[in-house]
Amino acid sequence: MKKKVTIYDISKKLNISAATVSRALNNHPKINYKTKELIHKTAKELNYKQNTLARALKSGKTKNVGIIVPYINSNFFSSVIRGIEEGLSPEGYHVIICQSHEDVSIEMKHLTTLLNAQVDGIFMSISKTTEDTAHIESALMSNTPIIFFDRKKDLTGISSITIDDYRGGYIATEHLIKQGCKRICHFSGDLRLEIYQNRYQGYVDALKDHNFPVKNEHVISTTSSVDGGIDATKKLWKLTQKPDGIFSASDYAALGACQELKKMKIKIPEDVAITGFSNEPFTQYMELPITSVDQTPDLMGKISAQVFLEYVNENFSGISIEKKVVLTPQLHIRKSSKRR
Amino acid sequence: MKKKVTIYDISKKLNISAATVSRALNNHPKINYKTKELIHKTAKELNYKQNTLARALKSGKTKNVGIIVPYINSNFFSSVIRGIEEGLSPEGYHVIICQSHEDVSIEMKHLTTLLNAQVDGIFMSISKTTEDTAHIESALMSNTPIIFFDRKKDLTGISSITIDDYRGGYIATEHLIKQGCKRICHFSGDLRLEIYQNRYQGYVDALKDHNFPVKNEHVISTTSSVDGGIDATKKLWKLTQKPDGIFSASDYAALGACQELKKMKIKIPEDVAITGFSNEPFTQYMELPITSVDQTPDLMGKISAQVFLEYVNENFSGISIEKKVVLTPQLHIRKSSKRR
Repeated sequence: MKKKVTIYDISKKLNISAATVSRALNNHPKINYKTKELIHKTAKELNYKQNTLARALKSGKTKNVGIIVPYINSNFFSSVIRGIEEGLSPEGYHVIICQSHEDVSIEMKHLTTLLNAQVDGIFMSISKTTEDTAHIESALMSNTPIIFFDRKKDLTGISSITIDDYRGGYIATEHLIKQGCKRICHFSGDLRLEIYQNRYQGYVDALKDHNFPVKNEHVISTTSSVDGGIDATKKLWKLTQKPDGIFSASDYAALGACQELKKMKIKIPEDVAITGFSNEPFTQYMELPITSVDQTPDLMGKISAQVFLEYVNENFSGISIEKKVVLTPQLHIRKSSKRR
Repeated sequence: MKKKVTIYDISKKLNISAATVSRALNNHPKINYKTKELIHKTAKELNYKQNTLARALKSGKTKNVGIIVPYINSNFFSSVIRGIEEGLSPEGYHVIICQSHEDVSIEMKHLTTLLNAQVDGIFMSISKTTEDTAHIESALMSNTPIIFFDRKKDLTGISSITIDDYRGGYIATEHLIKQGCKRICHFSGDLRLEIYQNRYQGYVDALKDHNFPVKNEHVISTTSSVDGGIDATKKLWKLTQKPDGIFSASDYAALGACQELKKMKIKIPEDVAITGFSNEPFTQYMELPITSVDQTPDLMGKISAQVFLEYVNENFSGISIEKKVVLTPQLHIRKSSKRR
């Protein structure tokens, strides 16, 4: 077998210290361009292959962490990511982000990619289609800490940082009741996800606690989109008894309802009061600002980072730390639901 | 030196085929959980270290590409990323995303991280603070193709996909002139970036071509934020001759102007006509929808992916392919500027 070319071979050939060669190959900003060019050229000639993994194994740390989210283009997920970065960057960590696009097979591949890249930890919010969790349990075996945020499954050895979605659903519905709504319907989102189940349950219990009937035809499963809200509104306004309140588990669907009702010349909040969920920035910029439940994503990210750092400091030495942090959501009351 | 443990040692010990061991260690979905568990346990006992890099070097491909953007929480960047993913996923590529937060030193570190992770290509939009480009030139030497989109520097060997920002600035300004505006001011963004320089130049030339004077006090450098727009508006409305048109190089700053002018009871578009830039989704949801320049980010992402695939197919064999694709922006005219 041919002897593996090392940094020392390059150092010897160029009469440059091994430390400088190493820094040049690692793209260190202090090494000037000419030297880097020479070193890279020589490395190529000698067929030198940099073994990052070996280096990572030596130190045990790559100082990279991975984040897997369903998608980045919502204020919620990008704010959680920002919170994680703010929590970890003082400790010298860099963050790599992957999107599953709600597809469990893509989620699986990203998990493998991140493990192969030897990240020091993985933060994830599962996709809608993640029912089986074998890929996550498998990943756990590599001893890389995994932390769930927002969308989770209950798995031994995995900490989670979530908000109290049940409470969010409850306070949003109770608020509509207090505004005088009698027939409150619900845009539920995808009930395969625990977060949406919990918001739905909060809605149901708030109605029951105030002696309102819970009607199946008042609950519509929608996508988290403007079009989803428009479709759901069309469907609901075919009922003989029209609703006078909407609790939407998605701000985008709430916006769709506002647009569709405006078209039908129905007054908000007088005829129909509306509350959304997530406190997306657009809810406050609207012609008619939308009441919404704030999930405090920034705080969620910062606490996720803290929990990860606790793992690292415990050295993750076979001890299974498992934290379940549940944050309290805040209702921001705006024009779309404020009758009184 | 102790002999390195290989997949074959695990295979022999468990009497399971090496292929199955390999697939289990790579978290293949077809291998059942029990087998995976057994194999991972044994790998750990034998102190087996998976050498991803070696594997990647063997095939020459990791099928991962990296994207570095200033930030993900704008519709523009998240749409370009989506376009790149849509272009590459049919070819089996996965996308890893990093944010520089406009900091060249973070951008540098991400570049090194991505190279170390042996990505097959890097797409990047440079940060505001990227003046020196030695880190990018250094990275180029590793033979990993780099493709710039939107924010770029002119470097040999790097393709770029941009929009014609000059034209965007020109048509937005000309539109305001045609609406009857006489004193058009400009929120310029950070003029260290080529994109903002070009939008500014488009503004200047449109004024000149229509025989309007270009006044220094009419150009304000703003951040791309609502607060930036509010501050700039306050500053401008201290002038004796008030402006009657604003071309903002940022939609967020345009929104800030709308808010501040509304506070001052100034009518839009009658007293002041406003156009933004980027066609962020909120511009159309507003009480007063904002005219804006669409940068076709989805198309930008798809073409970036295409250009990368051309590199790969040419095998990047020492040939320097350099493409400069420039897309044409589209003006979406809405209420904020429509007087006629």
